[in-house]
Amino acid sequence: MNNKTIVLRSTPGIIGAASFAGKKEGEGPLAAKFDVILDDAKYLEKTWEKAESKIQYDAYQTAVKKAELNEADIDCIISGDLLNQCIASTFAHRDSDTPYLGLYGACSTFAEGILIGALMVNAGYINHTAACVSSHFCTAERQFRTPLEYGAQRTPTAQWTVTGAGCAIIGTRRENAPFITAATIGAIKDGGITDANNMGAAMAPAAFETIYTHMKNTGTSPKDYDMIATGDLGHVGARLLRELFEMEGISLENRLFDCGCEIFDSNTQDTHAGGSGAACSAVVFCAHIVEEIKKRNLKRVLFAGTGALQSVLSVQQKESIPAICHLIELSV
Amino acid sequence: MNNKTIVLRSTPGIIGAASFAGKKEGEGPLAAKFDVILDDAKYLEKTWEKAESKIQYDAYQTAVKKAELNEADIDCIISGDLLNQCIASTFAHRDSDTPYLGLYGACSTFAEGILIGALMVNAGYINHTAACVSSHFCTAERQFRTPLEYGAQRTPTAQWTVTGAGCAIIGTRRENAPFITAATIGAIKDGGITDANNMGAAMAPAAFETIYTHMKNTGTSPKDYDMIATGDLGHVGARLLRELFEMEGISLENRLFDCGCEIFDSNTQDTHAGGSGAACSAVVFCAHIVEEIKKRNLKRVLFAGTGALQSVLSVQQKESIPAICHLIELSV
Repeated sequence: MNNKTIVLRSTPGIIGAASFAGKKEGEGPLAAKFDVILDDAKYLEKTWEKAESKIQYDAYQTAVKKAELNEADIDCIISGDLLNQCIASTFAHRDSDTPYLGLYGACSTFAEGILIGALMVNAGYINHTAACVSSHFCTAERQFRTPLEYGAQRTPTAQWTVTGAGCAIIGTRRENAPFITAATIGAIKDGGITDANNMGAAMAPAAFETIYTHMKNTGTSPKDYDMIATGDLGHVGARLLRELFEMEGISLENRLFDCGCEIFDSNTQDTHAGGSGAACSAVVFCAHIVEEIKKRNLKRVLFAGTGALQSVLSVQQKESIPAICHLIELSV
Repeated sequence: MNNKTIVLRSTPGIIGAASFAGKKEGEGPLAAKFDVILDDAKYLEKTWEKAESKIQYDAYQTAVKKAELNEADIDCIISGDLLNQCIASTFAHRDSDTPYLGLYGACSTFAEGILIGALMVNAGYINHTAACVSSHFCTAERQFRTPLEYGAQRTPTAQWTVTGAGCAIIGTRRENAPFITAATIGAIKDGGITDANNMGAAMAPAAFETIYTHMKNTGTSPKDYDMIATGDLGHVGARLLRELFEMEGISLENRLFDCGCEIFDSNTQDTHAGGSGAACSAVVFCAHIVEEIKKRNLKRVLFAGTGALQSVLSVQQKESIPAICHLIELSV
């Protein structure tokens, strides 16, 4: 447990956040909170990949506006996605003329982006940065699993890749903006899971390690937080995370809030173990968590982005699935 | 030209660097300078991908030793590669138990990693970080182009993906370690090139933009530097970069040193437009540039990592090739 916790003394804030969600996400429990709900998976583009890129671009533009800034005020875009070579992100920002840092942290990319952005703002290197991610059910399904036309059956542990994009603008502190007080960079953990349809189990040990270490490094326990949010463990991974904490004699009680469990209603939406994808935690963070902190319904929150780091090829080569979790702590 | 230049006042240094190179690279002009030259593309592993991962792991271990540190001293690994979902990197570090930040900047990833690492050390967040990348001719060729068994013909503008891995340890300043005085984060540039066998042309505008902006932001000109190193423009891209500067009335003279042009002898090694791949700039930096600065043969150097941000799918979907370039400035 070598994970690194960094305390941010000048407390950068989330000064704007935008969420674009797909049609199915827009029929779920958080429907009323998204900035935009798409009518159509292609978003008037020729391909799903171009659509994903456009969604990320539009979420970025919306977040900049919501932060009451202009594009020229953004010193750096920090972005990534699940597509091979992260093309959804690089194509989204190719005409922006804005400094760009590309990340790959699978579904943890949004938390990783906020973390790096907050470190840069806190150090005074830049004034405003945008952390952006996207994912798309159709682009992910055909890249990672099977062509959609096959209509392959899904296993009970499978998760549903969220279609959408989230963008958070991080800037020097403003009145009422949720501020980022600390961050923990996670290490890669591999629990030996080889079933690519059980990401929740693959990611739970990384989530445990990062959250546990953060609490240890900051001398806190679950009762110090109003919410301990995880990215996309889903119903399987969230149950495992609870069990891993219980093995240490720690109960997460009703504080655990997994974005993958909350974005869909699994009973009526046929999403099996819940939502996943880089956009899953991003849209729930931007649409729900940020707003609840601004309303002071949540005063101190851990946001832990989880990512499974496999590829189609690594699964074909019989490798197990390494995972990672990056965490930021937020306060009113 | 919105690129962001950050001056690093506490001047973090490159306190250790290791280079592992493939057999062909070990027959080129820089052969004598690499730490390790591989006998075999599989490196005793079952697949080329596992070999690439192992090479990156070994380069990391070697760099840590050369910096006279232990693994436990490394606060953060910053890493990436060209494989889908960056599996060479995530699998290399999956047992390290060290905080990990995954990047994707194509062949600019090494410069991006040093840049982010230097910003973190300069701000006092961490004491030591490792920037690691790898690439492998066989893994890249079959992922991006054609199965090796086809024996497809290569075009004159094609570049040869370097097999190897480089790792630089960035730490608080030490006597004699090349120190990092400034960095410029590049923006994505797309010059409209659609030929995936002409990366040099796709990347030259991004290299120009970042280097030109860095000089403008720091009030310098080529004569202030002993070397202006670019990552992997190759012979085609390097010529274009010279021309772009000449259009602004600026001559790079003999200061331009492209790692892709220098790693192979194109006349005898059949590498056409030169070397490329994330490891290209990394091994040349670690084996040659760092050493020349330490010997004080070079006193002030720009190191500009270049990356082409396309994927197989984006090329199939008839997109042009966006590119990026991140720069660090080094001094004795």
